[in-house]
Amino acid sequence: MYDVKVERTSAPKQKPLDESKLGFGTIFTDHMLMIEYDKGQGWHDARIVPYGPIAMDPAAMCLHYGQEIFEGMKAYRGDDGSVYLFRPQENFKRLNSSCERMCIPQMDEELLLESLKMLVELDSGWIPAAKDSSLYIRPFIIATEPKLGVKSSDSYLYMVLLSPSGPYYPSGLDPVKIYVEQSYVRSVRGGTGMVKTGGNYAAALKAQDEAHEQDYSQVLWLDGVERKYIEEVGAMNMFFVLGDEVVTPALLGSILPGITRKSVIEMLRSWGMKVSERRISIDEVAEAYKNGQLKEAFGTGTAAVISPVGELKHGDLVMTINGGKIGPVSQRLYDALTAIQWGRAEDPFGWRVKVK
Amino acid sequence: MYDVKVERTSAPKQKPLDESKLGFGTIFTDHMLMIEYDKGQGWHDARIVPYGPIAMDPAAMCLHYGQEIFEGMKAYRGDDGSVYLFRPQENFKRLNSSCERMCIPQMDEELLLESLKMLVELDSGWIPAAKDSSLYIRPFIIATEPKLGVKSSDSYLYMVLLSPSGPYYPSGLDPVKIYVEQSYVRSVRGGTGMVKTGGNYAAALKAQDEAHEQDYSQVLWLDGVERKYIEEVGAMNMFFVLGDEVVTPALLGSILPGITRKSVIEMLRSWGMKVSERRISIDEVAEAYKNGQLKEAFGTGTAAVISPVGELKHGDLVMTINGGKIGPVSQRLYDALTAIQWGRAEDPFGWRVKVK
Ligand SMILES: Cc1ncc(COP(=O)(O)O)c(C=O)c1O
Ligand SMILES: Cc1ncc(COP(=O)(O)O)c(C=O)c1O
Repeated sequence: MYDVKVERTSAPKQKPLDESKLGFGTIFTDHMLMIEYDKGQGWHDARIVPYGPIAMDPAAMCLHYGQEIFEGMKAYRGDDGSVYLFRPQENFKRLNSSCERMCIPQMDEELLLESLKMLVELDSGWIPAAKDSSLYIRPFIIATEPKLGVKSSDSYLYMVLLSPSGPYYPSGLDPVKIYVEQSYVRSVRGGTGMVKTGGNYAAALKAQDEAHEQDYSQVLWLDGVERKYIEEVGAMNMFFVLGDEVVTPALLGSILPGITRKSVIEMLRSWGMKVSERRISIDEVAEAYKNGQLKEAFGTGTAAVISPVGELKHGDLVMTINGGKIGPVSQRLYDALTAIQWGRAEDPFGWRVKVK
Repeated sequence: MYDVKVERTSAPKQKPLDESKLGFGTIFTDHMLMIEYDKGQGWHDARIVPYGPIAMDPAAMCLHYGQEIFEGMKAYRGDDGSVYLFRPQENFKRLNSSCERMCIPQMDEELLLESLKMLVELDSGWIPAAKDSSLYIRPFIIATEPKLGVKSSDSYLYMVLLSPSGPYYPSGLDPVKIYVEQSYVRSVRGGTGMVKTGGNYAAALKAQDEAHEQDYSQVLWLDGVERKYIEEVGAMNMFFVLGDEVVTPALLGSILPGITRKSVIEMLRSWGMKVSERRISIDEVAEAYKNGQLKEAFGTGTAAVISPVGELKHGDLVMTINGGKIGPVSQRLYDALTAIQWGRAEDPFGWRVKVK
C-alpha cells in the first residue's frame, strides 16, 4: 500500500444541480491530489487535500520556461453505480514518456493509479449520472523551483484535478467543420509534439482562434517539414476511411500517441477491418475525395471519443464527407467504445478498470 | 501619469553581503510589480507590492497549456550612482509581439516603461555595484483563467521581478564550447521560435542537459526543415566572422530577434564593417573553417552580452576558433557595449534610458 494522506474538506461544495449544463473543465470537485518532488529526496508527500489555490513563488520555473506536462482521462458512472476508468495505465505510461522528453523525473505508475483511484472514490459523488456525462481527470506536473536561469527544475509538483463534465456534443454526435492549416505549424520532428506539454497547446491557440473566427471548429495540422502530410487536429488524432482501408498518420515523433487512437486501431482490427498507420498527404485525401473513395473522416480523443468530420476545407477545395453526416464506421466505433467505457457492454480487451 | 499603487514592504530583506557570489536569478528584491487583465475590463490595477508568493488556482491555464511569455533585460549602476536601462522600449515592443503570437492582449508600452522605472527606482538599493554585475529584470505574463478547455485565457497577470546578478563570466570573457545539435529541434517556421514563450525553452532543456553531460555549455540549433541552416544558441543569437564579413542568421520566423543582436549589427555598421543577415549553413561555416576564413564566432544576448565561441563541434569535426581565445571583433563589441550600458562612454545611438 502506498502512503497517501487524506485531509477531507470541512466545507463540501454544492454539486451542480443541472447536469445538462455542466460544460467542460470549469467546475471542480471537493478534493485534489498532490505529490511533491525535491532533488535528492525524490517524489514524496502524496496527499489528498481540499480543492483550493496553491501558493506559488512568482519565479517558479513553470511560469517562465513552460516545464510542465499533463494528462487527460475520464471516470465513467455505469448504470449500476459502478465507476470505471478507461485504460488509465496507458495515460500514466504516456505521462512518464512526457516526463522523459521534458526532463522531469519519472513517477511510479502504480502509485499514480492507486492514488488516482483513492481520489476518484472520495469524490465519486461528483460523477454525473446523465447520459454521456463523465468526470474529467486532469493529472499534471509543474516545475516549481524559483529560479530564472534556464535549466531543468530541481523541484516539481504533481497534481490531479477532477471536473464533472457534460457530453461533448449535447445534441448528439455532430460532424464538425475543420480546415487544413497553411500558415502555422504545431510541431516538428525533433520537437515536443509527441508528448503532452503546455507549449504545444500554446503554440496552437492562434490557429484555433482564427479557425473559430471563420466558424470552423478546429484546424488540421500538416507536418512542419514538407507541409503536406497530415498530423492531427486540436486534441484529436485523425482517421480516414479510404475505400475499404482505414488510414491514420503513423507515429513519427510529431503527433501525440492518443489512447483513443490506439483503442480504435485495435477495435477495427478485431472487427477484421484493414487499418494502416502510415504517412498520408493532404493531396492523397483530396484525390480520394475526387474519386469518391473518401468515405469517412473522424478524429479520436478522450473528450469527444469519436468526432466525425463533415466538412474538410483545403484552400479552395471544400470536401463534404459522407454528405456531412456521421458515417457507419464512426458510429459503430462510437457506440462500441462508449459502451465499454460506461460499462454497458462486455470488455473483451480488458480496457476497463473498476474504481468501486 | 499612470496610476501605479505602491505598497512598500514592512520587512525589507537582507541584501546579499558578498556581491561576488550573486550568481544568476536566485535572489529577488523587496518588491514586485503586478498588472491584471480581465476580459471586458482590459489591463487594470497596476501595483507594486512586497515580493512574495501568489495564490494560484491549480486550474490556471498557464499551468496546463503554457500560455505565457516573458522578457529579460537589466538595470546597470554607473560609477556616479546613476541607474540605466538598455533599450527597454525594444523589450516592450518584443513583449507585445510575443503577446500577439500567443493570443495574449497587448499592453501599453509607456505604462510598461513607466511602471518598470518606478519599481527599479524603489529597489535601486539592490543594484550591485561590483564590476559587470547588474540587476536582472524579468517581466512576464501568465494566463490565469481556471479552466481546462484549450483556448485563449480570459484573464492574465503581468509581473516584473528583479534579481541582482553577478558577472556572467566571473573570471572574465571566457570562450565557450558548443556543439551542433543533430537530434532535437527547437523551433520551426510557423511555430513560436520568434517570440519569448515558455514552451520554446522547455523544448530545449533536453538538448541542453545532454550537452552539459558532455561538458559543452550549449547547443547550436539548426533549422527544423532542412536541418542545415544555423539558428541560434540557448539564449543567444549567433555571429560568425568569415574573412572580413560578419554574418548572422536572418530573422526568418524561427529565431528570436535579439536586442543585443540588433545593437551589434548597428554598432558594427557604424564602425564601417560589413554585416550580412542571411541564411548560413553549418557546411558554409565548416568550409570557412577549413579555408582559414572562420576568424571568430560569438553569441549575443542580454545575460552575457558577447559570448565568444572557442570550440564548435559538428559531428566529428571539432573547430577550434581563434585558438580558443576571444577575437578582436568580439572583444571590441563587448567593451563598447558594456561601456554604453554602464554609462562609462558616450551613447551615440541613444540606447540608454536613465532611471535616476
Ligand atoms: C494533441 C492531442 N492529440 C491527440 C489527443 C488524443 O489523445 P487521447 O485519445 O489519448 O485522448 C489529444 C488529447 O489527449 C491531444 O491533446
Ligand atoms: C532564444 C533566445 N535567443 C536570443 C536571445 C538574445 O536576445 P537579447 O539580445 O534580446 O537578450 C535570447 C535572450 O533573450 C533568447 O532567449
